[in-house]
Amino acid sequence: MTNTIFDFIGDSSGEWEVTSITTIKGEYLKPVTHISKVPSNLVQSKSGIWTLRGIVSNLRYTEKEEKLKLTAIQEDLGRENATYAAFIPIRKSEDWWNLAQDERRKIMENQSQHTQTGMKYLPAIARKLFHSRDLREPFDFLTWFEYAPTDADAFEELLYALRKTEEWNYIDREIDIRLKK
Amino acid sequence: MTNTIFDFIGDSSGEWEVTSITTIKGEYLKPVTHISKVPSNLVQSKSGIWTLRGIVSNLRYTEKEEKLKLTAIQEDLGRENATYAAFIPIRKSEDWWNLAQDERRKIMENQSQHTQTGMKYLPAIARKLFHSRDLREPFDFLTWFEYAPTDADAFEELLYALRKTEEWNYIDREIDIRLKK
Repeated sequence: MTNTIFDFIGDSSGEWEVTSITTIKGEYLKPVTHISKVPSNLVQSKSGIWTLRGIVSNLRYTEKEEKLKLTAIQEDLGRENATYAAFIPIRKSEDWWNLAQDERRKIMENQSQHTQTGMKYLPAIARKLFHSRDLREPFDFLTWFEYAPTDADAFEELLYALRKTEEWNYIDREIDIRLKK
Repeated sequence: MTNTIFDFIGDSSGEWEVTSITTIKGEYLKPVTHISKVPSNLVQSKSGIWTLRGIVSNLRYTEKEEKLKLTAIQEDLGRENATYAAFIPIRKSEDWWNLAQDERRKIMENQSQHTQTGMKYLPAIARKLFHSRDLREPFDFLTWFEYAPTDADAFEELLYALRKTEEWNYIDREIDIRLKK
């Protein structure tokens, strides 16, 4: 089975150089100058200044038509020209997690158009979601974005659109880390 | 935070005595005479003849009305008169996991009435679902049922109803372990 658990190690050296760390909401994260994204297992101990751990899981809200469209146009991480990245750990509030599946879906899609918004920036902005909540991590989700320097403006536009949605009201901790290779 | 990760340790001694282990589908599980359900963390190594690990997570398919009904009538594990238990690890096929959220929900509820069926047997049959798939475990889900000996027939009826549903066609490994305290 392919390894789908990853450790994001924040340290003083590593694969990606940190260009900025901004605390958008909630408690800050200790400053680091580099982040490495490495295949993990749940047993090994954590290293670096901090390690955030996430799992690639099945899609939890995406419906069939959206899934077909996504699969058709999205691209993987690791493209040669995608030398810019953003690593955005977020946590959602207890209010969010107490909602039922249909209520969460309604907020994400009908009111916030999460999938449609992301789709507009495909394939330029590659995106991978890592689930952390079930691992009792400090964040619920870690999202890793990769794009070419020429798509940097499009990326800001995407983030701006997501952050003003109804869904984002349920986020109680968010750190925005920018990186370059 | 309450511990929501559990190890189910199959061994030659323990809290619950195994009265039968039946392989319903797929590869068998090594025989054990006892199972203990203990709070876990993801780091400690596994023990016993085998250990299966699962996480209590948020509800993935339940809609608002169903959730309200469930919360109103379901009871917790650990009731004094619930001296019978069943521990049923299952794995679903890749076909299942490749479906989109709406397709899985449709199969679970419209076609299989998973929640409604379980609800009919509440509060008599207490039930707790543990998620294992994201931990790269051999099973996707571990379900633990507890009931009084007088509700044993009702429990067989519930299992029979679930196993003949459309949803159950997607199960490619299932072990049925019965226990008493």
